[in-house]
Amino acid sequence: MSGFGPELEVGIARLRAEIAGLHAELMNYGLVVWTGGNVSGRVAGADLFVIKPSGVSYGQLAPENMILCDLDGEVVQGTPGAGRAPSSDTAAHAYVYRNMPEVGGIVHTHSPYAVAWATRGEAIPCVTTAMAAEFGGDIPVGPFAVIGDDAIGRGIVDTLAGHRSPAVLMQNHGPFTIGPDARSAVRSAVLVEDAARAVHLARQLGEPIPIAQEALDERFRYATDSSS
Amino acid sequence: MSGFGPELEVGIARLRAEIAGLHAELMNYGLVVWTGGNVSGRVAGADLFVIKPSGVSYGQLAPENMILCDLDGEVVQGTPGAGRAPSSDTAAHAYVYRNMPEVGGIVHTHSPYAVAWATRGEAIPCVTTAMAAEFGGDIPVGPFAVIGDDAIGRGIVDTLAGHRSPAVLMQNHGPFTIGPDARSAVRSAVLVEDAARAVHLARQLGEPIPIAQEALDERFRYATDSSS
Amino acid sequence: MSGFGPELEVGIARLRAEIAGLHAELMNYGLVVWTGGNVSGRVAGADLFVIKPSGVSYGQLAPENMILCDLDGEVVQGTPGAGRAPSSDTAAHAYVYRNMPEVGGIVHTHSPYAVAWATRGEAIPCVTTAMAAEFGGDIPVGPFAVIGDDAIGRGIVDTLAGHRSPAVLMQNHGPFTIGPDARSAVRSAVLVEDAARAVHLARQLGEPIPIAQEALDERFRYATDSSS
Amino acid sequence: MSGFGPELEVGIARLRAEIAGLHAELMNYGLVVWTGGNVSGRVAGADLFVIKPSGVSYGQLAPENMILCDLDGEVVQGTPGAGRAPSSDTAAHAYVYRNMPEVGGIVHTHSPYAVAWATRGEAIPCVTTAMAAEFGGDIPVGPFAVIGDDAIGRGIVDTLAGHRSPAVLMQNHGPFTIGPDARSAVRSAVLVEDAARAVHLARQLGEPIPIAQEALDERFRYATDSSS
Repeated sequence: MSGFGPELEVGIARLRAEIAGLHAELMNYGLVVWTGGNVSGRVAGADLFVIKPSGVSYGQLAPENMILCDLDGEVVQGTPGAGRAPSSDTAAHAYVYRNMPEVGGIVHTHSPYAVAWATRGEAIPCVTTAMAAEFGGDIPVGPFAVIGDDAIGRGIVDTLAGHRSPAVLMQNHGPFTIGPDARSAVRSAVLVEDAARAVHLARQLGEPIPIAQEALDERFRYATDSSS
Repeated sequence: MSGFGPELEVGIARLRAEIAGLHAELMNYGLVVWTGGNVSGRVAGADLFVIKPSGVSYGQLAPENMILCDLDGEVVQGTPGAGRAPSSDTAAHAYVYRNMPEVGGIVHTHSPYAVAWATRGEAIPCVTTAMAAEFGGDIPVGPFAVIGDDAIGRGIVDTLAGHRSPAVLMQNHGPFTIGPDARSAVRSAVLVEDAARAVHLARQLGEPIPIAQEALDERFRYATDSSS
Repeated sequence: MSGFGPELEVGIARLRAEIAGLHAELMNYGLVVWTGGNVSGRVAGADLFVIKPSGVSYGQLAPENMILCDLDGEVVQGTPGAGRAPSSDTAAHAYVYRNMPEVGGIVHTHSPYAVAWATRGEAIPCVTTAMAAEFGGDIPVGPFAVIGDDAIGRGIVDTLAGHRSPAVLMQNHGPFTIGPDARSAVRSAVLVEDAARAVHLARQLGEPIPIAQEALDERFRYATDSSS
Repeated sequence: MSGFGPELEVGIARLRAEIAGLHAELMNYGLVVWTGGNVSGRVAGADLFVIKPSGVSYGQLAPENMILCDLDGEVVQGTPGAGRAPSSDTAAHAYVYRNMPEVGGIVHTHSPYAVAWATRGEAIPCVTTAMAAEFGGDIPVGPFAVIGDDAIGRGIVDTLAGHRSPAVLMQNHGPFTIGPDARSAVRSAVLVEDAARAVHLARQLGEPIPIAQEALDERFRYATDSSS
């Protein structure tokens, strides 16, 4: 019992199951190793979000051990899993939820090609139609920030504020993606790595052909998801 | 009931099962991510083809949600799955079926090494015996085209018209492959990525040794499939 | 009934099961795609070998569809699977068995990093202790040869004659490995790709440190298998 | 019966199961091929450790075939699996346990990106926050050493003595990792390859941005595990 009304309890229970399940996609697509990476989702109609616990193996993630937090990143006591620490990136997620009300889901990974761009501090140029549809342009780089206070969250928000892209590469760290819900943020995380790899491979043997801004705008206007 | 005769209904039902099943190969070989990529197959004896729905996860593809289209790319109403939108590449598939009567199957992916060549606008040179057997020479590049009208389909047809290769790399986009049936087109999609990767790796550390045109012709004459 | 004595029949049946099963390792380690690659094994006490059929999917390989051949590469009529064509590389396997009596198993793949070296016509230098233990030195390159007569087999035999290595990279084609039995040849095929990749990666960012010939000899003298 | 008291027998039995099970992680993360690589763990309260047998397939590893050794690397007779030879790297493990009493687990792999750095004799620079948290700085290189005596073990101990890093790249060979228990050493082995790959990819297209020593120290102070 955490003292929420029955409707909210149902919503939280569903979100726990969704967030636990979505973590499997991170492992399936090779975006994370060991206990790295995390997915969170905002609880509809409340100042709360659900996030992965810290240090738990992917094979052991389950609805019951997901952690419910308020928008200060504090664990909501009295709910399942509240004995465990939430992800070490929880403060960053909380900052984004506080400052970007349109965001319903956040994903963070150390996917290798994206980390490579992040480690050079280079934005990924938009040179494929798949990138145009998902990101609407380049994938930007955010500032270097050490874990532990609001610096990472602030870097994410400041960088994404002026961008179409739902993804940012935090320097020397890795990608964070946002979306209207957690599933969308996972899709963007998958497509960030896909783009990071394709453009890496392209540049290894020459220069990608740029896509005209006009074509980018045209493409982005029609794009809903990268559905094919 | 869609008003087709019983024989055609059986053929369509089989093709739905085949097309749904072949999509698993795209995921198994790492040629696609999320809901990207698509396979279609022409209905024997009718101006119809079956294609993947838009935005459905690979794990949820099934015979019933494959979409039946006419050769203008319009969904045939009254058949299973007709409530969903077909793949966003349907117009391109339809254009190829209208203009290349010998084509019975088409595949499109964003497989990463092939996308890298496509993004530089470079044909993949035929420098392995495996490429010689499957493609009979280089894998050509088609023009840049934005999704939404006939431009992609026209680019595929115009490029493949003068070529032995069943595969074309659409610039800044990715590979399309054709075949007498959908299974052959899937095989070519697998072998495009295999070739794109092998030649990429070869060129990273030097120059591949060319294969003499005479040997290519000899090899291609005997090749039936890349059977080993 | 193929007219062999009961003991030989048992040996052939066991070998069929072994050869069918070993093909799974090629797929598991990503050494082959589609129906490419093949494993064969010599029948103890007879001028016969068992090899993969041509054009059959890896998922459908089974003891019954393996093909029994004589050392001219001709299918032994009246045995299971004899209706199918054997691998298109059968002539090469037969040539090796005829000319290298110590060889009990042969594997051929198009594994991507090995193909890259083969396509540049470059031997893989022995710069890791794992390579020293398995290959005793560099992995050599054999001549370019078109499929269809004895040229490939002759190239394999001529190249491996003067070498410790159980592996040869046929130019613009791919690796062939030999061993006292089929399982050993599969192990060498796995380790060829592992070596091809490690040395490729090493050379991408600089020059590998050579291993002194003395250390190679020392190491090779003790090595039995790459057991760890 | 090996003559240990009941409490020690229980501890050994648990460790056998743990060590056997941890080997699956090496295969899952692609750190090993065939029978390569090995994990060992120290028996609490005794001068003993448990290690993988030599030349056994990953699919066949089980608690009963793990080998119990004393700190000279000699097999303890009369225990399960004592008929088999222990890993060919057992002398190196024994040397480390003898000389580093704080070490409770050791892992060795030939993971490809780490081998590439090892083969050039280059330390992996600490340029990601993930590396900072796990390794506290660069991953160092140890000397070239041939298998068979104490040279490898001595190289590991001498290199790790002055370092925060739980991982060392033995030149022309591959990574060894240590930890307070076997699971920690496995985690470090996974994260060594992850780091080796990310920094390799970063350097392929430019220079990684350095992380200031101050930030490294800060980060390392807070890090417990790479939990996310």
